[in-house]
Amino acid sequence: MKKTLLSLAILTSFGAAQADEGMWMPQQLPQVAKQLKADGLKLDPNTLTKLTEFPMGAVVSLGGCSASFVSPEGLIITNHHCVYNSVAVNSTPQNDLLANGFLARTMAEELPAAPGSRVFVTEEVSKVSDKIIDPATNKLAGKARIDAIEKNEKQMVAACEQDPGHRCTVASYYGGLEFYLIKQLEIRDVRLVHAPPSGTGKFGGDTDNWMWPRHTGDYGFYRAYVSKDGKAADYAKDNVPYVPKHILSIAQQGVKEGDFIMVVGYPGRTNRHRLPSEVAWTFDWNYPAFVKASGEVLAIIDEQTKDDKAARLKYAGQIAGVNNYYKNRKGMIESYQGSDILARKTAEFNALKAWVNASPARKAEFGQGMDDVEKLIAQRDKQVQDNFFLGYASPRFLGTARTLYRLANERTKPDAERKSGTQDRDLPRLTAAIAGQDRTYDEKVDKALVLHFLKQYLAQPQDTQNASINAALGLHSGMSEADLKAQLDKLYAGSRLADKNERLAWMKKTPAEFKASDDSFIKAAVAMYEPAMKEEHADEELSGKIQQAYATYMKAKIAYMNSKGQAVYPDANSTLRVTFGKIAGRERGADGTTGWTAFTTVNGVLAKATGEGEFNAPQNQLAAIRAKQFGKYVDPKLKTVPVNYLATLDITGGNSGSAALNAKGELIGLAFDGTLDSIISDWDFNKAMTRDIQVDIRYILWNMKQVDHADNLLKEMKVE
Amino acid sequence: MKKTLLSLAILTSFGAAQADEGMWMPQQLPQVAKQLKADGLKLDPNTLTKLTEFPMGAVVSLGGCSASFVSPEGLIITNHHCVYNSVAVNSTPQNDLLANGFLARTMAEELPAAPGSRVFVTEEVSKVSDKIIDPATNKLAGKARIDAIEKNEKQMVAACEQDPGHRCTVASYYGGLEFYLIKQLEIRDVRLVHAPPSGTGKFGGDTDNWMWPRHTGDYGFYRAYVSKDGKAADYAKDNVPYVPKHILSIAQQGVKEGDFIMVVGYPGRTNRHRLPSEVAWTFDWNYPAFVKASGEVLAIIDEQTKDDKAARLKYAGQIAGVNNYYKNRKGMIESYQGSDILARKTAEFNALKAWVNASPARKAEFGQGMDDVEKLIAQRDKQVQDNFFLGYASPRFLGTARTLYRLANERTKPDAERKSGTQDRDLPRLTAAIAGQDRTYDEKVDKALVLHFLKQYLAQPQDTQNASINAALGLHSGMSEADLKAQLDKLYAGSRLADKNERLAWMKKTPAEFKASDDSFIKAAVAMYEPAMKEEHADEELSGKIQQAYATYMKAKIAYMNSKGQAVYPDANSTLRVTFGKIAGRERGADGTTGWTAFTTVNGVLAKATGEGEFNAPQNQLAAIRAKQFGKYVDPKLKTVPVNYLATLDITGGNSGSAALNAKGELIGLAFDGTLDSIISDWDFNKAMTRDIQVDIRYILWNMKQVDHADNLLKEMKVE
Repeated sequence: MKKTLLSLAILTSFGAAQADEGMWMPQQLPQVAKQLKADGLKLDPNTLTKLTEFPMGAVVSLGGCSASFVSPEGLIITNHHCVYNSVAVNSTPQNDLLANGFLARTMAEELPAAPGSRVFVTEEVSKVSDKIIDPATNKLAGKARIDAIEKNEKQMVAACEQDPGHRCTVASYYGGLEFYLIKQLEIRDVRLVHAPPSGTGKFGGDTDNWMWPRHTGDYGFYRAYVSKDGKAADYAKDNVPYVPKHILSIAQQGVKEGDFIMVVGYPGRTNRHRLPSEVAWTFDWNYPAFVKASGEVLAIIDEQTKDDKAARLKYAGQIAGVNNYYKNRKGMIESYQGSDILARKTAEFNALKAWVNASPARKAEFGQGMDDVEKLIAQRDKQVQDNFFLGYASPRFLGTARTLYRLANERTKPDAERKSGTQDRDLPRLTAAIAGQDRTYDEKVDKALVLHFLKQYLAQPQDTQNASINAALGLHSGMSEADLKAQLDKLYAGSRLADKNERLAWMKKTPAEFKASDDSFIKAAVAMYEPAMKEEHADEELSGKIQQAYATYMKAKIAYMNSKGQAVYPDANSTLRVTFGKIAGRERGADGTTGWTAFTTVNGVLAKATGEGEFNAPQNQLAAIRAKQFGKYVDPKLKTVPVNYLATLDITGGNSGSAALNAKGELIGLAFDGTLDSIISDWDFNKAMTRDIQVDIRYILWNMKQVDHADNLLKEMKVE
Repeated sequence: MKKTLLSLAILTSFGAAQADEGMWMPQQLPQVAKQLKADGLKLDPNTLTKLTEFPMGAVVSLGGCSASFVSPEGLIITNHHCVYNSVAVNSTPQNDLLANGFLARTMAEELPAAPGSRVFVTEEVSKVSDKIIDPATNKLAGKARIDAIEKNEKQMVAACEQDPGHRCTVASYYGGLEFYLIKQLEIRDVRLVHAPPSGTGKFGGDTDNWMWPRHTGDYGFYRAYVSKDGKAADYAKDNVPYVPKHILSIAQQGVKEGDFIMVVGYPGRTNRHRLPSEVAWTFDWNYPAFVKASGEVLAIIDEQTKDDKAARLKYAGQIAGVNNYYKNRKGMIESYQGSDILARKTAEFNALKAWVNASPARKAEFGQGMDDVEKLIAQRDKQVQDNFFLGYASPRFLGTARTLYRLANERTKPDAERKSGTQDRDLPRLTAAIAGQDRTYDEKVDKALVLHFLKQYLAQPQDTQNASINAALGLHSGMSEADLKAQLDKLYAGSRLADKNERLAWMKKTPAEFKASDDSFIKAAVAMYEPAMKEEHADEELSGKIQQAYATYMKAKIAYMNSKGQAVYPDANSTLRVTFGKIAGRERGADGTTGWTAFTTVNGVLAKATGEGEFNAPQNQLAAIRAKQFGKYVDPKLKTVPVNYLATLDITGGNSGSAALNAKGELIGLAFDGTLDSIISDWDFNKAMTRDIQVDIRYILWNMKQVDHADNLLKEMKVE
């Protein structure tokens, strides 16, 4: 009887726990201060708006992942899957760090992170909408508008980057309605400090990905290094640890269900303000096509590398990435098919249109943009569809050749006029990326992928194919597979770009030298260039029109929502956001379960461990669990070590590695995933079902203490 | 609010649903008739005692699995994992039936089942305790007692088997206290009719094994054939389908939570009446050793066959079997470590001893046996421990050679005096097994396994090694790995037993011919023979003592329980049993869940499907789910097709494939597994946590109809 009452009490608290929508820009937080306080925040909400103060100042971006400083010597905590590539590139069949884990016991033992790894420390954010779309720009349309916007952005970025070692970005919010200039210190010497074995860090693998109950120790550590004088610098032996202005301290008290939690990080992209027609196209065509192609990519890599462990390691990062999106998109499609999203989005859009049309003033301001936006988007969707298979069918080093030739052409212009991505400021990253391509490339795999997707591309109707690409590569509709294969063999054999020094040499050559080359991929890149520039021009014309129409639509939508008393946060765009809510289980579980508790524990690791494959928990970890060597990381209520926990937060890809903070701003875990039902929230926030998943800081510390004996790091973080 | 009430209602019904202990012999059912009626049985409980009537007459044993007749033409339904070996032996790398599934659209397309496959149809069961332990036998002890028991058994079996095509067995109940003679028709021509792809039949693989939520379509079909005159016969083209006396009809109504359910089958072995000292030894030494060795076996097979698909297919059955027990034993150890089983068993045993000692009459009857039994069991456990690694370290064909030489020696005696297993009645099965060994053998795998375990055996203290085996195989403590390898190479190279005809030829040879052989394994078998016979003699001496002491202990225990008004069902012993209870979820779920619903659905298949590995659901199945092509198999409440369901039943290994029947005795599914917490119930029935898992007949029929288009079989079963 007591048990039933207890269960009822839990149910009631579940009933109250609705997921909390909102990826708030820090400066918006005072607007929701009441809610923050009500939920239990003990800090002054106004301090959260200051990006260079505690705690925001400790939160950094890795570009695609989020992370935080946790020691005055530049120690950074993030997810295992965010350091995965760095572990993979340092792994060999003889010394498989992915399988065995890695721990640097001294700074001297730390390993260089994967080429191109960066730590971005945000230093300033300022609103620049009126400077990017200044009165002159606002009179322009089409390509001219896009060019003007890009010119304004570049000037602003160039001025900002006068400060060496910094990277500046102009980020667009509300679909091009607002713009902010973000200035970040770009740390280029990043080193791998610690990653648990994949049996911990990736426990459950793709089977458990997006699933609950979850038992993944998804954590890893980097360290940021700068030159002796404290500037961002390339890797050098005598670089010194970066001293962050602020660090997160580790919570000494564990968390429990119902506790306040906020997650601070860099969510990548959501689509909550999209048009109903975009929703329909995405779920009826684009995502299904992606899922099919991804399945094929995985199968081909698997087949090609099954007897070649070295090649498999090279593709480990790509496999992990594709798998992640594969399951994400599949989950979205499933959720969408069982939902009324399209009907609801359509009704909302129609209500907005009706509101606009109900007032002559509003009709004058928004009417045209609202009319245009749908047509323009349909036009772009058609292009994406036509180019879909081509996107999968480019040989890796043909892509490199095209990048290099574009660079050569851009370099004939003054730096300020060059295309973004080819300016001097971009060259160090580009050089590192091009130099590192060998580490993730295997010719037989690349060729098999290209062959597979070229076949599908060549089966498209002639008028949806790209004539100039066909000509440059010697392709034509209806060519036999044997001919296609022979043609690919010729192309691959005719290029020397698989050689790193060869690729790097081309970074400095002139267009004339490219035109004189007999390298097959360089020749193809030269042949494709002019037609591609024409396409780009047309794309920009379209983009300019879309920017204008979309901004008008968003402006109308914000005005409409405000008229109903509702605030609007912008869709995620890889800038710093805060989401807050409660630690909470869920009343509705997965098929076959009545509900979810907020926490999983190491007991579940024991139950799931199989000794092989995706559930290959380390033997010493299992032994520590069996021996109940929990130390101070035991949860007083659970009587064991918690592993992961659910919360009602609003996160998405890019939030991986984000700090989860308690009411005092102390680190209580890392966000790393959402449950499958949450995925659709990227398009339509599902209050009842959305839960994100954190790895509990106690599990991280317990593993480091009892299993991996990372006492040096625990001491550095001042927890032992 | 409504939702919370509903959830409360479900919880309340969970609270009431305690698992139902008892694997009842059919003849015991009238003792529990009241409970059967109260639970909802609509049949007369007395009909359930008649093994040749409906429904018991339709239930058969496959030897290790249970099954049922479902058509008048001998069609048999059982689990996918029970027909798994038959699918594997018919698979080739080119035609992988395991992956693709198999469906015979006509009888002509059916394939021979794995060598040695049998269908046992029980025809008579009679209590023979007083004939097996007749007054003369009861005066004997040690080996003499065992010999007398065996002689009585053999005479009884021989008389029974006068009826051709039958197999008779004397089964021991309550640890040798009672004996029953069981007469079964032994059908030898068994054919594979249908198995879904492993993506359905083994969906979830080892990851989901013993887990809930579960989504496994664990079903397959055989057909039994007999000669034209209706007798059991070897495979022959013109054999005809066996006409069973009774068949199960398929329930037209689906089941729901709270419904009555009974499962009828052949549970293999439980240990609920074991001594506390046996419990301690098993969990402290035997199971941990087994788990470790099994993990090593799996790793070695995996490593050796990773580039050899044909070899991997040969070991598919062994891998599946080892994995199953591996997880089972691990689960038991986990449950045991968190329990008070040993303390409780000890207290119960002490209470029994106290009860015995409290009365001079009882002390006289039971005292000596109670004293002896613990010492004798400890002696046997020590032997098992010494021989543990040797059990894993015998080359496959050395084992065959020893069997063959034993056969040759036994064949010098009159049939009735031969050791069980070597009598004429045993020869057809033995021949089939020996002939079929190639299909599950690969020399490099076998040698790697033997090498691995011989190393561990040779590291044992000298006095725990087997001197005669060491001498016969040229082994000695402290030999280097290189020497050991060379010795194994010599042994394997020196034998011709890998050749099937060679093996079969030895079945007819005389001991003298064996002694003259230069085949390395035959020579070793001859050298080992005499010492092994001596060990066997000593073992039998011990067994005789144990039988006597154990029977005394069980008799005391039954008397004690009866004195407290409690009936006692015997431990499982591979004979027909009935367990009954309710379809019910569970209040306590796995780590991270609040509880379990009784049913899973095809929605969960969609959610778990990854397109590869263990969760590779067939694409056409997923398409049918997405398209909601459910037909009449939709559950009215779930609004979709149910897949698996939980019940409160008491089953164990051997129950695999058992018919699950509703209150009218109609087929509502197949039992195929229990949840991890239930496993410990083999030793100590856990009323709160034990749930068994059935595959819902509706899922089976839906797959056959919508996915695999097995309309011929649906028609035969009269469901379409």
